[in-house]
Amino acid sequence: MAYIKLPEGLPGIRGAMAFRPETARPLNDLVEILLHGPNSLTTGERELIATYVSSENDCYYCQTIHGAVAAACLNGDEALVKQVKVDFENAEISEKLKALLVIAGKVQRGGKQVTAEDVARARGRGATDVEIHDTVLIAAAFCMFNRYVDGLGTDQPRDEAMYRERGKWLARDGYVNVSKEYLPAETAR
Amino acid sequence: MAYIKLPEGLPGIRGAMAFRPETARPLNDLVEILLHGPNSLTTGERELIATYVSSENDCYYCQTIHGAVAAACLNGDEALVKQVKVDFENAEISEKLKALLVIAGKVQRGGKQVTAEDVARARGRGATDVEIHDTVLIAAAFCMFNRYVDGLGTDQPRDEAMYRERGKWLARDGYVNVSKEYLPAETAR
Repeated sequence: MAYIKLPEGLPGIRGAMAFRPETARPLNDLVEILLHGPNSLTTGERELIATYVSSENDCYYCQTIHGAVAAACLNGDEALVKQVKVDFENAEISEKLKALLVIAGKVQRGGKQVTAEDVARARGRGATDVEIHDTVLIAAAFCMFNRYVDGLGTDQPRDEAMYRERGKWLARDGYVNVSKEYLPAETAR
Repeated sequence: MAYIKLPEGLPGIRGAMAFRPETARPLNDLVEILLHGPNSLTTGERELIATYVSSENDCYYCQTIHGAVAAACLNGDEALVKQVKVDFENAEISEKLKALLVIAGKVQRGGKQVTAEDVARARGRGATDVEIHDTVLIAAAFCMFNRYVDGLGTDQPRDEAMYRERGKWLARDGYVNVSKEYLPAETAR
């Protein structure tokens, strides 16, 4: 049971967002732009960065739902998502994404961990400044989301089928649209 | 020099926000609601939470600018801001705020560090569910902002007068209004 009285039947961040729609709106807007909006990184690549950071932060809800979105974006390849979480250097992903995941992992441990060499390597593998910026901000944002979800002691059911199903909706419709389920219309926009 | 090419003359998060106005808008909206919007916690109390977390994350820019906003909200009491950063249990603040700062410090180290006892103590000292929620989210959000600012290697000039002056504007006008200086009008709203 969560540490504060959250609306029932909404696991993870959804209960917290329904509790405080004023903050839910910018949080949904942010994740929509970072993970679902137009970008030279694919949605699958961005969801893998979010999943990896959430896994490093040991947040069950976030790593499972974003892992499900990532898999949905990657033709259902759940094995690849798992491989990225445990050992991305040996995963079947681009060398550019590996360099971006190194940066994301550094951000997860602390902003000052990132070095000019990490960034130069990513750039040498084709990463643009916007891609590097977005990788840093996705990793930083999930250090927020993970702490928000775990810091309130939210309900995080162990129900793989639920995450898999919802992951497909989020991959298709995005965060702002799906949040309309549980946010007042004027808040969800 | 920052790791990516940011607009010149805008220190800390301001350069990163001017570089990517699409993400700057929800980030400004979030901090506006959390720190400047209507709340039963005063702006001074909320800025102290942001300052304390930024200090624990060793982010010079964020702890200095939010420390300056906090001082501006607290009749210029810079000594109190410093005391909260180094030893809040012995600072001249309410017992409720001390209990909320304990929760914020736990969130900074990781969401799972927060316990039911921490929350019960804050509630016993008069904290509401919204205040507990907002404390967790402010602390989580500054774990994002601090990583964003340091992870991009942004310019963070050591110029106390600059932060003090800007802190007064932010305390008075809030984040969305002040961001209009450097964001396109349609983005800053």
